[in-house]
Order: sequence, then C-alpha cells, then structure tokens
Amino acid sequence: MPLGEFELIEHYFRQPAESMRIQRGDAPLGIGDDAAVLEVPEGTQLVAALDTLVEGRHFPRGTPPESLGHRALAVNLSDLAAMGADPAWFLLSLATPAAEPTFLEGLARGLFALANQHGIALVGGDTTAGPLTVSVQVLGLVPRGAALRRSGANAGDLLFVSGTPGDAAAGLKIELGAGNDMSIAAEQRAYLRNRFLFPEARVALGRILRGVASACIDVSDGLAADAGKLATASGCGARIEVAQLPLSEALCAALGRDNAQRAALCGGDDYELCFTVPPSRVDAMRAQMTNVKCRVTCIGVLDATRALRVFDNDRELKVDTRGYDHFAQTR
Amino acid sequence: MPLGEFELIEHYFRQPAESMRIQRGDAPLGIGDDAAVLEVPEGTQLVAALDTLVEGRHFPRGTPPESLGHRALAVNLSDLAAMGADPAWFLLSLATPAAEPTFLEGLARGLFALANQHGIALVGGDTTAGPLTVSVQVLGLVPRGAALRRSGANAGDLLFVSGTPGDAAAGLKIELGAGNDMSIAAEQRAYLRNRFLFPEARVALGRILRGVASACIDVSDGLAADAGKLATASGCGARIEVAQLPLSEALCAALGRDNAQRAALCGGDDYELCFTVPPSRVDAMRAQMTNVKCRVTCIGVLDATRALRVFDNDRELKVDTRGYDHFAQTR
Repeated sequence: MPLGEFELIEHYFRQPAESMRIQRGDAPLGIGDDAAVLEVPEGTQLVAALDTLVEGRHFPRGTPPESLGHRALAVNLSDLAAMGADPAWFLLSLATPAAEPTFLEGLARGLFALANQHGIALVGGDTTAGPLTVSVQVLGLVPRGAALRRSGANAGDLLFVSGTPGDAAAGLKIELGAGNDMSIAAEQRAYLRNRFLFPEARVALGRILRGVASACIDVSDGLAADAGKLATASGCGARIEVAQLPLSEALCAALGRDNAQRAALCGGDDYELCFTVPPSRVDAMRAQMTNVKCRVTCIGVLDATRALRVFDNDRELKVDTRGYDHFAQTR
Repeated sequence: MPLGEFELIEHYFRQPAESMRIQRGDAPLGIGDDAAVLEVPEGTQLVAALDTLVEGRHFPRGTPPESLGHRALAVNLSDLAAMGADPAWFLLSLATPAAEPTFLEGLARGLFALANQHGIALVGGDTTAGPLTVSVQVLGLVPRGAALRRSGANAGDLLFVSGTPGDAAAGLKIELGAGNDMSIAAEQRAYLRNRFLFPEARVALGRILRGVASACIDVSDGLAADAGKLATASGCGARIEVAQLPLSEALCAALGRDNAQRAALCGGDDYELCFTVPPSRVDAMRAQMTNVKCRVTCIGVLDATRALRVFDNDRELKVDTRGYDHFAQTR
C-alpha cells in the first residue's frame, strides 16, 4: 500500500536516518508547523533562490533518484554560490506520481548527502501527488553588502570560469543513450555521466570570490550565454578565447576538440561559476584558491563592445549565445 | 509564436504593469540575478513557507488563471498568518505546458493583486515548460520569539475558527459542475464559488493573535483534521461543538444544515485560522478584533483526552479527522 502524504513526509523527510539529519541552532522551528522560523544574524543579509526540476525537461525520465535529489539541491546551491552566499536552510516541494519507497529513499539519500556536505538543514516544504517535479528553495547568508552580482564588472576585468564546462552536456548525452558511438574508456564515460548527474555547487569558491570578484553568475544555460548575461548586466561586452577554455580530457576524448569547445561554450547544466576579476586583484584571488578544490581558468576579458564574441586566435567564431530555453527544447 | 523563457519572465513577472508592481526598500536585489538579497531587521525572525499547487490535484483543470495566481500565493500567506508573521517577499516557480499570453496575464493579475494587497514583493524564482504547477515560497518576519505555533495550547484553552469554514468545499463542488442540483440563488452560488477560487489569507488576524493565542494552525485539510493536529502537537485533545460552527447562509442553503456542518468540519481548502486562546485572554482578543474584518467563533475547548471529538449537544458524532491526503484522492 502506498504511504499517505503525512506518513511520507514523516518517514522520508522529517525523520531521516540519524546519519542524514542536520540540526542547526539557528532554526528554532523547522518541519512540522505551518512554516519554519529562522534566525538571521545581525550584520548579514538573507539570500534566497527557488529553482524547479521537471521530469522530461530538466532531467530525463529514468534519472537515478539519488541524482534527482542531489541536482534539485545543487542547482539552488549554485545560485547561492554565484552570490557568494553561505547556504543555511532549504525547503523542498516534491510532486511525485506515487509514493514509491525505493524512489523516495534514493531521492532523500541524494538530497541529504549534499545537504550534510554543506551543513544545511531541511526546514519545510510539502509533498503531493503529481507529475514528477522537485522544487527546492535555498536560503543563505552573506555579510551585509558583500553579495556578488552579475552587474559589477568593468571593461578590462578578466573573465574566469571554474571547473571544466561542457562535461555535463556530454554526460547528459551518455545518460540519454546517445553516447554509444563515443570511443572512450569506461572511466571517462562514468566521469562525464557523473558530471551531469552529480554537479558540484561551487559554494567554497563563491565565498572566496566575495572579496575579489567584480561580478559572478552561475553557468546553467551554457557558458557563452551566461557570460553574455553577466556582460550585459554590467553594461559591457566580453571576448572569450576558445583556446583558453578548460576542457577535460574525457570531454575531448568523447567529442573531439571542436565539439568539446562547442559543448563547453553552449552545453548547459554545468553549474560552474563564471566571474570577473579586476587585474589588480587576480593575485589575491590566486592566493586564496589554495583552500578550494576546483580550478579556475581565465578564458577572456570584458570590453566595451556590448557584445559577447568568441575568438579562435584572431578568427571570430559564430556561437549560439541564446542559452537554454525551456520552452524551445525538450529532453 | 510563443514567448521564450527569458521574455516570459521579463514580460509577465519582472516588469508587470505599473499598477501591479510593489517595490520594497528591504530587497536590495530582487529578480534578475542568481538569487535575491533581502534585509531582515534586527529583533525579528524569518518565517518561511513553500507550498505547491498541481493541476488536477489542488485545482481542477480549467480553473480561471486569476484564481490560480491568487490561490498559489494565498495558501502560503495563510501558512504565514498561522505563525502570526508579516509577509514580506515571495518567490514564484511556474511550470506551464505553453507560454500562453492570456493565461499568463490572468495568472500574473491574480498573483499581483493579492501581493499588492499585502504589500509584498516578488523577488525571484523561475519559469519552465512542464505540467501546470505553481510553487510559491513566501518569506515573512515576526518579532523574535513571538511566532505562533501549533504546540502551545493547554487543556481548558478555548478553540476558535475564523470565517465560515465549509464554503470552499461547496465552492469547489460548484466549480466542478457538481452543484447544479443546489437550489440556491445565483449570488449564493457566486459567493461559494468565490470562496474556493479566492480564499482570503487571514494575515491581519494572525498579527493580532501573536499576543493572545496559545496555538494556531491554518485550516487547509479540513477543520476537524487541522484542529486535531493542533491538539496533538500541544499534547491535548479537543472537543468541538457542531452547534457552534459558524456556517454561512449560502452553505446551509446549498447543502442543508447537516451537510453544511460536515463540509465545515471536513471540507478542506478553507484557509481560515484555527487557534486557541486561554479564557483569561479572550476579552483582550475581542477588543483587538475591531481592527479585523473577519469574524472569529468559539467552537469548542481543549481537554486532556488526547483525542479530537465532535459533539452535537451531548451526542458524539463520527467525523473523519484524517484530513486531505494528496495521494488518496484526485480532483
């Protein structure tokens, strides 16, 4: 017999196994009342993001439930990372066609593993029957006035990206069964698939960038599109050098260099950070990067053109910079 | 040609018509970046709720878009009202099968009309293609330590409900076309339908109750079920007197007295407040009620039985107190 709504909430999300549970002293009232009550410390500002994953749109049918739980939280943590915020609490709204224990256990496992990694607590939300949809709302904190924005860059600032964009797009291809013609090793295949299924939110990097970056955005719709949005919000243009794009070995092996570059520029689902640093602050940033696992790579510079342009040495390339449009494509 | 995602966000939600827009000085960064940045004043706590409406589950297919926009926000405001919180900001996550202008205009109209009434600002969220689903996350503020909970009631406290519960259940029946045999006037029919389509969140009442109520819950799953949850959370039982239930004339005309009482106890979708007040504070509450439009009615008392019981004079009635279960019923 499927569990009813109340039992479902209780069982999987209110009282997860001891190993899954995070308690925070700054949530005087969490799940179980009409709303959560939370303490925002003096001197900080609240940062809030709400993002939804819909089956067939943001993830293919048959996605492992652990991945779904992970990604639903990760895409929101990535938004907070792009603001330089420290995530603190989250709320979950889950619609699922049936209260299927194996699925829910997996989803909870993926969700809480990531939540615990970042020390954040589930404090509310709801569950309902419906087409598979996961909304997560993450709340974080940032010292007053220190939040990173998209709009702070100036011409001359250097453009950076974290990690190796494009991997997730290749991973999605593999996940969809379209990667069978890729002549790559099983570990490379697993690496790329993992990059789609379990993106890392760059929270620690965002925290470091608070003091040094002039602007920041998370890369969800494709690096070129998101870099373009940052440039536009800052009243600038930008020039990206494809030769400088940080491509993973697995991506190049899977797609070849040209398509790997294309995936890095237009792929989507990377959840890396794209940010700008004034030349005078690059050394300060590099010095702090020793505390962060991921690499950051300078891929270009902001300029006064008001356009995003991509160059292969001196040759300008045509690149689709429109970004992922949820009403134009289907997964 | 349907609008793309970015145009959709811009057009309907980021830059609504002048008459729709609320600006708040305490949202230094709203829609348009990766996340919103918000100011929580010293001495207050943050209150957060996230609730989702799914087509065919929380509202029937064909629901007017104004109602959908209104209800998606109202159900969350109701959660904040039950905490005694002042709503401040909200985020919207909208999944819709197509970017259909008439529908989106209507939804935005319903949403912003209610937001403006409460002086709250839309500060973020996302839109995507998908089965029609509206998630709203409302953030509010409450003086530190003053939030109402479900768990503060004691045996002997009087049990109250706001408004006239049951109306929404009859209104849903009418909306579903199942009310054609109700021999009631057109105005009564319109009144009941309106009570389902445009519930009022009892925010002003919640604010008053902060100082006087010992416990509070919003009535979404049915008065008996929700009063039962309050009693259980408080370690008490409760006795409800059906003769004291505040029934609207329209509801009695539509269903007859017995079914009207049943609808008031078990109907769901009321979004009224159910709360307890120690006898010593009832006069103080009544004195403050002059500032609030809605009526409140004493319907019973908390006791030490640890069960919710319903009485018609001295005869105990059998009442389904399980509440609405989203996995057990379909609309």
